[in-house]
Amino acid sequence: MQYTFADRISSLQPSAIREILKFTADPTVISFAAGNPAPEAFPVKEVAEISSRIFAERPIDALQYSITEGYTPLRDRMKNFMRDRYNSYRDFDELIVTSGAQQVMELTTKALCNEGDTIICEAPSFIGSLNAFRSFGVKLRGVPVESDGIDIAQLEEALKEEKKAKFIYVIPNFQNPSGVTMSLEKRKAVYDLAGKYGVMILEDNPYGELRVKGENIPTIKSMDIDGRVIYAGTFSKVLSPGIRVGYAVAPSPVIQKMVVCKQVTDVHTNIFGQMLADEFMANYDFDAHLEKIRGIYRNKMGLMLDLMKQHLPGSVTWNEPEGGLFIWCTLPEGADMLGFCKEAVETYRVAVVPGTAFLTDESAPCSSFRLNFSTPTDQQLVEGMEKLGKAAAKYLTV
Amino acid sequence: MQYTFADRISSLQPSAIREILKFTADPTVISFAAGNPAPEAFPVKEVAEISSRIFAERPIDALQYSITEGYTPLRDRMKNFMRDRYNSYRDFDELIVTSGAQQVMELTTKALCNEGDTIICEAPSFIGSLNAFRSFGVKLRGVPVESDGIDIAQLEEALKEEKKAKFIYVIPNFQNPSGVTMSLEKRKAVYDLAGKYGVMILEDNPYGELRVKGENIPTIKSMDIDGRVIYAGTFSKVLSPGIRVGYAVAPSPVIQKMVVCKQVTDVHTNIFGQMLADEFMANYDFDAHLEKIRGIYRNKMGLMLDLMKQHLPGSVTWNEPEGGLFIWCTLPEGADMLGFCKEAVETYRVAVVPGTAFLTDESAPCSSFRLNFSTPTDQQLVEGMEKLGKAAAKYLTV
Repeated sequence: MQYTFADRISSLQPSAIREILKFTADPTVISFAAGNPAPEAFPVKEVAEISSRIFAERPIDALQYSITEGYTPLRDRMKNFMRDRYNSYRDFDELIVTSGAQQVMELTTKALCNEGDTIICEAPSFIGSLNAFRSFGVKLRGVPVESDGIDIAQLEEALKEEKKAKFIYVIPNFQNPSGVTMSLEKRKAVYDLAGKYGVMILEDNPYGELRVKGENIPTIKSMDIDGRVIYAGTFSKVLSPGIRVGYAVAPSPVIQKMVVCKQVTDVHTNIFGQMLADEFMANYDFDAHLEKIRGIYRNKMGLMLDLMKQHLPGSVTWNEPEGGLFIWCTLPEGADMLGFCKEAVETYRVAVVPGTAFLTDESAPCSSFRLNFSTPTDQQLVEGMEKLGKAAAKYLTV
Repeated sequence: MQYTFADRISSLQPSAIREILKFTADPTVISFAAGNPAPEAFPVKEVAEISSRIFAERPIDALQYSITEGYTPLRDRMKNFMRDRYNSYRDFDELIVTSGAQQVMELTTKALCNEGDTIICEAPSFIGSLNAFRSFGVKLRGVPVESDGIDIAQLEEALKEEKKAKFIYVIPNFQNPSGVTMSLEKRKAVYDLAGKYGVMILEDNPYGELRVKGENIPTIKSMDIDGRVIYAGTFSKVLSPGIRVGYAVAPSPVIQKMVVCKQVTDVHTNIFGQMLADEFMANYDFDAHLEKIRGIYRNKMGLMLDLMKQHLPGSVTWNEPEGGLFIWCTLPEGADMLGFCKEAVETYRVAVVPGTAFLTDESAPCSSFRLNFSTPTDQQLVEGMEKLGKAAAKYLTV
């Protein structure tokens, strides 16, 4: 039979990068295109211990249906964590456990936005979030990211023009893909503008605990006296992405609607993953664990930056992020970035993600691409960057 | 601040039953209102064995990101399972692993339906599915269920009238909540009507393996030569609901769109749960396990039916399902069913689900309620049914 699909999903798959990403399934291709944690960052021994305790002592709890809001001990623990560590949980807030932070994007949009509403995003921004927004038929309005975060003047311009704006979506720490960290001044300005124009803020902080240098900057949620910030957190980068456990902190009326939406989506997040996260936070030294994985990423990022200096032509530029998993790299003006990415993977067998993938308008001009240093081994970093250098040298002189 | 939510979720929460269900959190209330598997039906020892093997031998696989389509060994295994056991996997089909069967409802609607489209459902039907459909702003059209399944004449009427119908949603085996099993003739008729009117079918089969008497009837999917049937299966009732692992079998173009939708929802289903399900199917005797849990439910259903005969007034009627977890019970015409359910929980401390919760139109007349026998212990069945009998005796003579 002929299948007809919903209008809302027609724009979901950016076609330009699909061709490049499908190469990453080929084991002979070195991929700087992923965003997986380094395998050595997983607390394997601890997880095995916790798991055998859970199935020895409380197997029924781990196998039976649970409540949509999340495993109560984990919820209580993360409320305290958000309050004590980040000053980001007030009396009017609530917390929902989600199936990864990706589900926070889905539930927020489903609860807040009608088709035709607008979400204001950083440009570039995380493609997974942009596609979650798109899948509800909302309009995306991109605002450029500068070296200290979103362009505040252009954000105000966007808020003035977009009469149906519902929220501003930002990743303040080590933004994916730009690597940029938003300054404290800009965080305050974003919060103030949201208040002035009566919109909410979705603050996505998957990498906040992966800072490798510099000082922590307060979350936007910590400034939230009005109750207009929805904060998305996750265990994906600090414990395990495979368990699919994230969370949102937001004013109670918003969380209540997210619970209603989650109930019809997946009933609840898998309970074993929630118990695992809870026991890990309760019985192990989370800060010592963070120190260890920060060390891993500090080394990997440093290695990649050294190799970039060594191999990439002088006309290629990049920033040095203070954390996270990505480096944003820019070809000289006028270079055919998409062509370069294609040539790099087809001829030199090294994959990067074209910057256009992260734009609200995929056809806008963009000469940047994203590099990831957490997934490849050190040896792959060395070999891959040498190859990428050759690809760049050849491509930029042609 | 003032929060405004999306129109699509305004109708999600049926208010009439919320009052009753909140009583089930009270431990002094005996609940016949749930749908949880019996704790003794979980293969606890096997799960502990599998879990320690996974974290000893393949911890990184269980902790790292995985692909949206699902864990490849489990997908391949379930394709064979659906082909060999149910003749329900053809060359044009594909399989996606989902976060419980609930997510199949979500993904199917998201992929196929625009706001304003119609989904044709059995009336009554599973509230979780109805709410998933509602959450996309679709119209629900209910078609009455008879003792051998959906009313075929009224189904054709609905298909004639609903010009924007996208699919027919049915639960052919031991339907939730009616307990009814659809006859082979009606399954064929539903399939033929879907072809005649050019719509798809969503066949939900969470209880199919929980048959306690009678003969298996072929799935509608087994008749699907046109590629118009989406089949939803789950490990929730035969292994564990807490792991949140279900699956859908459908023609490849439909599965491809469901994958796109799933990617922006939760990236992938938790990988440990998928590995657990795969190893359980691979290394343990699934049929022996099914025999065991069928025995548990045969006994529990038999006990509840005996107690109903013993305690409920003669004017109360019910069917005897051939499987599943629920018995649908009907008060004499004119009785105030909602009042009875309220009185039962408030005064007699026993909770049942009012039948209106399962209707596409919650305000339609309904004198039935749903009983569950899998969650309560045998002792709770005895005590609870005695109390429910008292409530009915008092309520029906007032």
